[in-house]
Formats: sequence, C-alpha cells, structure tokens
Amino acid sequence: MTNPPSVSRGRRPAQGAPVIDRAFALLTAFNETRRAMTLAELSRVTDTPPSTTLRLARRLLHLGALERDADGRFVVGLRLWEVASLAPRAHGLRTVALPFMEDLYEATHQHVLFAVLDGMEALLVERLSAREAIDVLYRVGGRLPLHSTGVGLVLLAHAAPDFQEAYLAQPLVHEPEGVPLSSAALRRALAEVRRNGIAVVNRQEPRPLLAAAAPVRGADGDVVAALSVVVPAGHTESRFISPALRATARALSRGLGAPVSAALPPGRFPDRP
Amino acid sequence: MTNPPSVSRGRRPAQGAPVIDRAFALLTAFNETRRAMTLAELSRVTDTPPSTTLRLARRLLHLGALERDADGRFVVGLRLWEVASLAPRAHGLRTVALPFMEDLYEATHQHVLFAVLDGMEALLVERLSAREAIDVLYRVGGRLPLHSTGVGLVLLAHAAPDFQEAYLAQPLVHEPEGVPLSSAALRRALAEVRRNGIAVVNRQEPRPLLAAAAPVRGADGDVVAALSVVVPAGHTESRFISPALRATARALSRGLGAPVSAALPPGRFPDRP
Repeated sequence: MTNPPSVSRGRRPAQGAPVIDRAFALLTAFNETRRAMTLAELSRVTDTPPSTTLRLARRLLHLGALERDADGRFVVGLRLWEVASLAPRAHGLRTVALPFMEDLYEATHQHVLFAVLDGMEALLVERLSAREAIDVLYRVGGRLPLHSTGVGLVLLAHAAPDFQEAYLAQPLVHEPEGVPLSSAALRRALAEVRRNGIAVVNRQEPRPLLAAAAPVRGADGDVVAALSVVVPAGHTESRFISPALRATARALSRGLGAPVSAALPPGRFPDRP
Repeated sequence: MTNPPSVSRGRRPAQGAPVIDRAFALLTAFNETRRAMTLAELSRVTDTPPSTTLRLARRLLHLGALERDADGRFVVGLRLWEVASLAPRAHGLRTVALPFMEDLYEATHQHVLFAVLDGMEALLVERLSAREAIDVLYRVGGRLPLHSTGVGLVLLAHAAPDFQEAYLAQPLVHEPEGVPLSSAALRRALAEVRRNGIAVVNRQEPRPLLAAAAPVRGADGDVVAALSVVVPAGHTESRFISPALRATARALSRGLGAPVSAALPPGRFPDRP
C-alpha cells in the first residue's frame, strides 16, 4: 500500500486496527481546513479502502455522528456535537465560565478566551469576540501553542513539573513569526507567570496585540483552565485589564468551588475589606 | 436477557449490532443527569455485558472519546468535543452567530438563545446568559420542545409541510405546566409566526417570562436556525426587543449569505433609508 503524507495528526490506525479506531479515524480526519469531504477524500485522508470507508461512513451517518451537507459531502453531525456537549472539561467548565467571561467582555469589547490543557497544547473551549475586534488566530475547538500564548503560558506554568520539563526539552519556535525560543527564556517566563499570577504576552503578528491570561482553579485548588483577554496594542483600557482579569479569574475559581487561598495569585496577601 | 426500561432514548443496539453502534451507544448513554458513570452503570444503562462494556470503554478512553474523572468514573472526553466542534450545524453556525448574539445580549442583559431543528425537537446550540438573569430550563446541547418555546415555534413554522403535519398529529402538552395544546391552536400559532416574522411566547412557569424568537436564514434562503431573547415578564426593555431581534436576525442571515429578500420577514416591505 502507498502511504500518503500523514495528514490526520498521526492517528491513522494500523491495518487491521479495531473497527472503533477506524470509525474514530474517519471522524478525526475532519479539521478546520477539511470541514466537508467526499467519500474519495475521506478514503484518501484516512488511508482506508473506499469500500471500507463507505461502510463505516454509512454507519456513522445512520448514528448521526456524520451528516451530508447540501453538496452531498460528509460533515461532522449534530448528534455527535450533542453528545460532546456533555464533556465536563469543555462544556461543563464553559457553562460556569461563560457569565464571568461576559463580565470581562463588557469591560473590553475585544476578545475573551477560555482554554484548557490537552496533550502538549491548549484547547480553546470558548471565545467571546466583538464583530469589530482585531483578528486572532484561534477558533473554538482549535489548539494553541503553550509557549507563545497567554493561556498557554498560564497552563504550562501550573502543569506538573515532569510535563514542564518534557515540554522545555523540545525545540521551540514562536509562530507565526518563526523566532526560536530558548528553554532558558521560557523557564524564566514561566517562573514570572507563577510569581505575578498572570501572563502578559505582547505579539506583533498577525498584528500588534496584548494578551493577558490568568489561572482558573477547580475544587481541589489545581489550575484547570486559563482565562485571557486579548486587545490591540495601545488599547485605551489596557491598564484596567490586569486587575479586571485577576478579579474575574478569582471569582470564576470560586464559582468552580476552589478554596479561597488557592484562588489567590501566589505571593499576594489576602484581600482586606 | 432481561431488558431494563429503555433509558438511552431508544438507541440501545440490538444484540449482535455492529461494534460501532455499541460504542456509540456507550457515548450516547451520557446525558444531563448522567454525566459521569462507573463501568457497572454504563453496562446497565446500555444493557451490555460488563466484559464487553469494559473492552469498548477502554478503546474509547484510548481514543480520548471518554475520559475518567477524579473519582475514576467515565465521562465524555475532550477529544470528542474537539472533533464535534467542527459540526457545521452546531459550531459552524454558532461561530457566525455569536457576535450578533453579543449585540442582542448587550441590549437586554438576560438570555439570548440560538437553536436548530433536530429530529422532532430544537437543539440549543448557544446561550448567552447574565449571571443575574432569570432561570431558564435549557442548557447548551439540550433539547427544547417545538410547540412551547419561541425558537421551537419559529423552527416548526418554517419546517417542511409534511414535517409540520406529522408534528401536529401528535398529542401535545405545554410543559412544565402540563396544559394540553390542540392541533388547531398550534396551527393558528404557526400561521401567526409566519405572518409576523417572529414568535412571541409568554410563560408563567418556571416563572413569568417573555420569549421572542426570529428565523435565521442560510445561503439558500431556507430557515436554518432560530434566534431568541428571553426576559422576565414586565422587563423594562421589552418593547425594544422585537425590533432589535428582527434587525439582528436579518443581519445574521446576511452574515450567513442569505439573499436579502429571503432575510426579510414575510409580508414586510424592504427597509427605506
């Protein structure tokens, strides 16, 4: 068999893999640039014979995990989304977070992001954006690099030490600028995030912006997510962003049942009335 | 084999059903009141032997479609949510809708709902809600009855005639009040929704509220979703809600590529400058 370039993020099942793996490979073949595929495309992308692809796709259509669009191409189905809306680390957290995100959104009218750690990346669980807001690179359900985004730095700074070391051991590059990042520089940045309680990132690409991010803690006091505000560089409200972000992340942590002391940024005194 | 009461919405696969169906049955066994299950619970709810359940659940864990929570129970996984975020009729529509929903939210600071038709119900794809807003019964990913909600009436009023007739042929009850609804009364209500371009629903349960909903059209001019604002009865802004809702639903329809004429409520003249 010919092996086309690996296109499904290394998840192509081996020949003879269980049928569940093959079915899941069909679903995970969809991505942001491949939201609709013909049978031939699905077969090619998953490196599965057309007859097998057809049989699996029919089953998934029947179950509602796939649908056909107006052009007859396969797309991810509403029924799959309905099931997935019960994922505690996505919609569960998001349901608690959304009203707090609204508060933050009203203060800036730009972007408010909410992300969790998944594998070696941050997964964007929610984003509130004004229509007139600056462009950002990330969509809900999309992945962000840990080392060059506000939410990523917060999640990495509070991840398990072993995980941090494994991450720091890789060659790292700031995208889209293509600037290499040394592990020493990232180590210093992570220490600063832990010390300050928030991460602040200034980016020039795709356009000048300021991103600030704060940790969100769960009932056991561990960081479960990161909350971020992204505004254009020089935004008039930027000096208010950090205090508003800190306050909202703490309120949200309390909403998730975090003990008050854990919800405090490290190195800060408890509030006084 | 004993057959427990059908608990997974009639989707329990027959003995000997394809393994994909069995795996999907495990996923769809989760619902709003069963967000986390032990292996024994999963086995019981899906009427699948524990050994088979364990084998399937392990595969789904490996793929990230399931995860284990802090108590070791199975929950829907983040990876499934990531794939499902590509569903065009859920997140796809929602991505376009969200900024328009924000605009409406700022006018009312209560609830803004966005729903699509799925089967005989409306599926709530997005909801923006203020922390201090009145209680509503519905969550994102949850289902709403077509005959007793604003979004439901809009979707039903613009559904295919055969579908409407099939729906009208059922015995219908307003929930949670338990008041029967005649097919003649519903038929009149649907005609009024089509004539007015919006649906207005006054409910007393769970508390007095006013819901207004308007159709959202796609590129082919068909109604693809419904947008709604829910406020407490007597809300000071209620007289502004209908015009704001109409304008936003039209702007959103244009954003989805709807032809301008189709985006107009039926029976209305085009805007004049």
